[in-house]
Amino acid sequence: MTVQNMRNTGKRTDYTRNAGSDSAPREGWIWGRHAVLAAIANPRRKVLSLLVTRNAARDLPEGFDHTLTEPGEIDRHLPAGAVHQGFALQAAALDPESVRGVTDPTHGTLLVLDQITDPHNVGAILRSAAAFGVRALVMQDRKSPPLFGTVCKSAVGAAERVPHVRVTNIANTLQEFRDAGRYVIGLAGDGSEALDTALAGPDGQGWGPGLVLVLGSEDKGLRPRVAEHCDVLAQIPMSDAVESLNVSNAAAISLYAADRWRAKRG
Amino acid sequence: MTVQNMRNTGKRTDYTRNAGSDSAPREGWIWGRHAVLAAIANPRRKVLSLLVTRNAARDLPEGFDHTLTEPGEIDRHLPAGAVHQGFALQAAALDPESVRGVTDPTHGTLLVLDQITDPHNVGAILRSAAAFGVRALVMQDRKSPPLFGTVCKSAVGAAERVPHVRVTNIANTLQEFRDAGRYVIGLAGDGSEALDTALAGPDGQGWGPGLVLVLGSEDKGLRPRVAEHCDVLAQIPMSDAVESLNVSNAAAISLYAADRWRAKRG
Repeated sequence: MTVQNMRNTGKRTDYTRNAGSDSAPREGWIWGRHAVLAAIANPRRKVLSLLVTRNAARDLPEGFDHTLTEPGEIDRHLPAGAVHQGFALQAAALDPESVRGVTDPTHGTLLVLDQITDPHNVGAILRSAAAFGVRALVMQDRKSPPLFGTVCKSAVGAAERVPHVRVTNIANTLQEFRDAGRYVIGLAGDGSEALDTALAGPDGQGWGPGLVLVLGSEDKGLRPRVAEHCDVLAQIPMSDAVESLNVSNAAAISLYAADRWRAKRG
Repeated sequence: MTVQNMRNTGKRTDYTRNAGSDSAPREGWIWGRHAVLAAIANPRRKVLSLLVTRNAARDLPEGFDHTLTEPGEIDRHLPAGAVHQGFALQAAALDPESVRGVTDPTHGTLLVLDQITDPHNVGAILRSAAAFGVRALVMQDRKSPPLFGTVCKSAVGAAERVPHVRVTNIANTLQEFRDAGRYVIGLAGDGSEALDTALAGPDGQGWGPGLVLVLGSEDKGLRPRVAEHCDVLAQIPMSDAVESLNVSNAAAISLYAADRWRAKRG
């Protein structure tokens, strides 16, 4: 891609350009050293323009097209306060996978986010999902934060590595997973089973790759219809000194605990 | 306390007032509904002034002194972008506990933070520490974020519940803990043992209340001298798709795994 091409991307995009009112934006900005270097190393990521400072340019792969600029000029394209470290990438959204593509229970653990909107949390969850080999992150098409900006910054490159699936109805999707033979564990403070017991499964050997973990928002937890479509609601045993954990911490604990079972099964 | 008393707190404090150049501030602002309500419910927390909107005032305990004001006036006291939900409390710092007060290995698990500076992470770690009954959080006096503002907001009240200890030298403190019979596990990406193996201990029964968990910064991990003063360096087993987890997620996993051993020991 040449600088000429970069300028041929049509209208100026301020931050993210929405396809619809609140469905996923088709393009947006990614900033920060790790996030941008991971994005340009991802062959599935279409680059629209890359702005870097002279210092940052030294970290780019040999011959990678870019526009040299000043930090203040990069600021102008990004939300106030974005810590870009001299790297800002305007890129197309990664294509989501289809539900059908991830349904097969032999294909690995799925992580479903029910209305988790905080981009720091979604980014940290992507990072943990990559760390524990999650097959895909499943989100609602509406009310999910765009997979750009703060999400990518907090994911430190993991947004490039974990496939995502966008669905219109989480409860119906969970039913599809169960119909295909997957086992769906919803995390809930008032869950009837302890997390580790739920993960152990009926034979005490662990659920294996057919597992689906579902996390709800910090305020409200899982919505009732989503909770109804889980096989079991599990809680992380904890003291009553706090009501709940940060949702990315709850996700990390669940993924770690599930991964320990996977390792035991071998 | 009366409104008159509130005004008698001496000089106007913008955000946090430092005792020294970068040691812990003696007073500061706490904002957000959960954080402020937890702080005023804490008998050890000295209130200097409490600003609330008319809506927020309804959530205060009967008869609790406060100043009614407008959201914009609250904004004026806080850093830009602080989401205060109509609650802002100017308060004295909680007194730290002494190292001696937490050294005894029968007194419960300690969590040590080696130069973790991000206030969102420290807040989320406090929340997990409360959830898993940590005896105290140990931090370096210098280079730790003040336990006000974003730390308290992210801790959602847990900053009032987890005692903290401030030390001048983390490595020396770890040695004191070991001399007292505690066992110190440092988390490190290149640790020689898997976390669960390290936590199981030599008899496979778990380390119990004498455990000390040490976490380093995301950039640099544990500093060499701190790592040297751990009994063992343990890693959280994960894929090589990411270099590391978010540090609050690593803390949550470690505390959960340690708590599972505690529960098994009974």
